[in-house]
Amino acid sequence: MNKQQNILIIGAGLCGSLLALRLGQRGYNVTVMEMRPDLRKVNISAGRSINLAFSDRGNKAMKLVGIEDKVKTLCIPMNGRMLHDIEGNTILAPYSGREHEFINSISRGELNALLLDEAEKHKNVTIHFNRKCKSVDFENTTATFKDYENNVEFIEDADAIFATDGAGSAMRKSYFLGKKFLFSFSQDYLTHGYKELSILPAENGGYKTYKNALHIWGRGDFMLIALPNLDGSFTVTLFLSFDEGEYNFNNLTTKERVLEFFGKYFKDALELMPNLVDDFFENPTSPLGTVKCSPWHYKGNTLLMGDAAHAIVPFYGQGMNASFEDVVEFDKVLDEHHQNWESVFKAYEKTRKKDTDAIADLAIDNFHEMKDHVNNAIFREKRNLEMALEKTFPNEYSSKYSLVTFNEDIGYRQAMLQGRAQDKAILNLLADKDININDDLKIILEKVKAATKNILEDDKIAGLK
Amino acid sequence: MNKQQNILIIGAGLCGSLLALRLGQRGYNVTVMEMRPDLRKVNISAGRSINLAFSDRGNKAMKLVGIEDKVKTLCIPMNGRMLHDIEGNTILAPYSGREHEFINSISRGELNALLLDEAEKHKNVTIHFNRKCKSVDFENTTATFKDYENNVEFIEDADAIFATDGAGSAMRKSYFLGKKFLFSFSQDYLTHGYKELSILPAENGGYKTYKNALHIWGRGDFMLIALPNLDGSFTVTLFLSFDEGEYNFNNLTTKERVLEFFGKYFKDALELMPNLVDDFFENPTSPLGTVKCSPWHYKGNTLLMGDAAHAIVPFYGQGMNASFEDVVEFDKVLDEHHQNWESVFKAYEKTRKKDTDAIADLAIDNFHEMKDHVNNAIFREKRNLEMALEKTFPNEYSSKYSLVTFNEDIGYRQAMLQGRAQDKAILNLLADKDININDDLKIILEKVKAATKNILEDDKIAGLK
Repeated sequence: MNKQQNILIIGAGLCGSLLALRLGQRGYNVTVMEMRPDLRKVNISAGRSINLAFSDRGNKAMKLVGIEDKVKTLCIPMNGRMLHDIEGNTILAPYSGREHEFINSISRGELNALLLDEAEKHKNVTIHFNRKCKSVDFENTTATFKDYENNVEFIEDADAIFATDGAGSAMRKSYFLGKKFLFSFSQDYLTHGYKELSILPAENGGYKTYKNALHIWGRGDFMLIALPNLDGSFTVTLFLSFDEGEYNFNNLTTKERVLEFFGKYFKDALELMPNLVDDFFENPTSPLGTVKCSPWHYKGNTLLMGDAAHAIVPFYGQGMNASFEDVVEFDKVLDEHHQNWESVFKAYEKTRKKDTDAIADLAIDNFHEMKDHVNNAIFREKRNLEMALEKTFPNEYSSKYSLVTFNEDIGYRQAMLQGRAQDKAILNLLADKDININDDLKIILEKVKAATKNILEDDKIAGLK
Repeated sequence: MNKQQNILIIGAGLCGSLLALRLGQRGYNVTVMEMRPDLRKVNISAGRSINLAFSDRGNKAMKLVGIEDKVKTLCIPMNGRMLHDIEGNTILAPYSGREHEFINSISRGELNALLLDEAEKHKNVTIHFNRKCKSVDFENTTATFKDYENNVEFIEDADAIFATDGAGSAMRKSYFLGKKFLFSFSQDYLTHGYKELSILPAENGGYKTYKNALHIWGRGDFMLIALPNLDGSFTVTLFLSFDEGEYNFNNLTTKERVLEFFGKYFKDALELMPNLVDDFFENPTSPLGTVKCSPWHYKGNTLLMGDAAHAIVPFYGQGMNASFEDVVEFDKVLDEHHQNWESVFKAYEKTRKKDTDAIADLAIDNFHEMKDHVNNAIFREKRNLEMALEKTFPNEYSSKYSLVTFNEDIGYRQAMLQGRAQDKAILNLLADKDININDDLKIILEKVKAATKNILEDDKIAGLK
C-alpha cells in the first residue's frame, strides 16, 4: 500500500505511542491526537508512580522497534510472588522453574515518555496533546476533536484512523451508538474495585521490603499487592468488594475502620505504611472491568487497538503486554502485502481477536488464583510440582503461567487451552493420589502429559473448545 | 408489602401481560404502557402468523395464573424434529423417549391476546396502548412516554417500575447511558441472521407436510426450520450467514439466485413454497443477538424482566418459556414476605440470573447442534442411545434437551451442567468404543452415569463450573 498515506492515531498512551513509532518507521505520515497534556512536561500523576508488569510479549514489541536496551534500564525484575500470610510470614513462590524467566515492574509514565521520544524522532510523526476526541465519523474517516488549549472543535480527515484511546474509547462509543452495523459489545465489571496506596522508600532511599518480587497478601475474598519502583517505593493496590463482606469499600469510611481492617488482615504491610490513611482517603476507588467487542474495524476506514478493543482486568499482568503484542501482530499482517486497509484490518482481527479474548478470560481466572488459590493446599502443591518440572525438564514443561507470560511465540488462546488442561490434569492427579510430589519426576511428567492429552482429546470429541 | 402500591409495567408483550395478570391477581394497582397498538384490534403482522415453541416451563406459569386449559387449545404438539436431508429423505427424531414429553407450536399473537384479556378482567389492571417509553428516571421511579395518539409526551410516576419491553428495552438503555452505577452489559450477535418465510395451507385447508413436528433442514453452515400453525400453514425460518459462504443474505439478491439456492439445498421444501420468492423479498432479514446484563434492578425502584433483562437466540425454543418462568420465580420471591422492593428485587436476581445466563449459552449450543450436529454420525448415535435410555429408564435418565425442556423443577443452570457433562460422557464413551448401542442398556446407563459423575467431580476439583 501507498506509504504516503495519512494515518490518524487517537490516543498517545502506551499502545498509541508504540503504534505511532512503528508506523513512523514504516514510512507512513502519522498524526497522533492525545487528550491529556504531554506527560513529559506536566507531572500528571502528582508524584504517584504507577507501575505495571512488563514481560516477554511486551519485550517482543520493544525488540521490533529497536528499543529493548533502553527499556531494560527502566525495569525492576520480579522473580516471583512474595506471599504474605496473615501472621506476616512470607514465602517466595517463583514465577518459573527456569531462572532466566521473570517479569518486571516498570513505570507507566517513564515507558510512555520513552515511546513518545522515539516516535517523535521520525519527521513523519507528529503528536498533538490536549486534543480530546469527541466522536469518529467512521463512514467518512474523519474524527472530531476539541482543542483544550482554545476550546475550539475541529475535524481531522485521514486515510485510516486507529483508535488507541483506551478502555473508554470515543471511537468504540461511536461504533456502539452509530448502529450502522451489528456491533457485539460487552462491558463486565467485577464485584471488586481497587485503590492505589504506597510504601514509601526507606530513609536511606532503599526498599522497605524485598525488592525483586510482586508481593501478595491474599485473603480469600480480597487482597493487597505491591510492586517496586526505581525510587525505592512500592505501589500498593488493594482489591476489595464494593459492598460485600464485613469490610468493603462502601463501609471503610473512617480512619479507625481502615486501620482496624489493615491491622487485622495486613499487619506487616501496615507497619510499612504510616501514610496509609492519607493515601486511602486521597486516592480514588476505581472499578475493574473487561471490555470485549467485534468487529474492531469499519471497512478499511477505522480500527480499534489496545484497551480500546479489549480492556482486561490487571490480574495476569498482561494488559500492557497484550496491547504491545497487538502492534507486533498488526505489523506482521502489514508484511503480508495486502491490497488495502480493509483486507489488513480483517486479517488482523481474524488472527488477533481469539487471543485477546483468551487473555481477558485468563486475567479473571488469575483474580481468583491470586486472592484465593495461592493459600489453598492443593493449588500450592500443584505449583510446587510445576516448579520442579520446569526446573528439571526446562524444555519439556511450561506451566499455564509460563505459557502465558514467557512463551511469546505461542498465542494467548493456545496458552489458555493447554494451560487449563494441564492445571486440571495435575489437580485431579493430586486429588486422586495418582501422583505425589515425592515420586520420580520423570514419571510425574509422563502422567501429567498423558492426562493433559486425554483432557484435550475428550473436550475435542465433545465439541468443546 | 402494601398491596395498594402503584406498579408501572413497561411493555405488554408476552412477559409484560403475564406479569400484569399475576400482579393483578395479587391485588396490586397495575398500569401497563405498551408502545404498539392493541394487537386484538389491529392486525399488526399483516396476516403473517409468527409462532413460538411453548413447553413445560411456560406451562408452569400458565398453571400459576390458572389458564392452562385455555392455552392448550392454542397449542399444536410437536413430538420431535423432522430431519430433512439434502435428497429430501426424512427421519422423525423424537424430543424424548417418554411419550408424554413434547413441545408445542403456538401463535405469539393469540397467546398474547389471551393474556391481555385475562389481565384486563382485573379491575386493578389498566393497559394503555400506543404509549412508547422514551426513558426511565430510575432514581425518581418515573418514566417518560410519548402518546402516539396525540404526540404528547408525559411522565408517569409509580412505586415500582417493571420493564418488560423486550430486547431493545428503553429502561435498560437508561441504565446503560445513565452511568449512575456499574452496569455490566453485553450484546452479542451471531454471524447469522434470519428471515421468515411460509408454507401455505393445502387447498383443502390441511397441512402440506407432517403437522406434529418441528421440521429441520440442517446444512452445516445454515438451516431452514418450519413450525405448524392452526390454520394449516407453517412458519418457515431461514438461518443464514450475512456475508460468509457461497450463498449468504448479502448475495441472495435476485429471484434466480434464491431459487438456485433453495433448489440446491432445500429441494423438498421449495416444492411446498411456490410463494418463496415473494416472501423472501418482502420480509426483512433480522439479526440474532444475545443480551445479558447486571444488575437488573436499581435499588427498590425498577426491575428488568423477560427479554429486557436476558434476550436469547431462538434455538432452544426457550425464549418465551424463560420469560414466563421469570414471572413464576418472581412470584415465589413475593411469597417470601420481604420488607421492601429492594429486598425482593435482589433476592429475585440472585436466584434467577444464573439460570437465564445458562439458557442463553444453551441456546447458542443448540444453534450448532441444529444446523450441524443433527447430521453428524456420532451425535446421532448419542441421540438414539439417549432415546433408548429415556424409554427404558423413564425415571432414571433425562437427556440435556429433556432436562432443559421437560424438567421445569430443575433450574436451567443445573440442567446445563448435568446435561453438558452427560453429553461429554456419552460422546467420549462412544468414541472410545466403551459403549455400543447394542450393549445391554442397563450397563450403558451405569457407564454413562459413572462417566458423568467423574466429569462433574474433575471439573469441581479443578475449580471449573
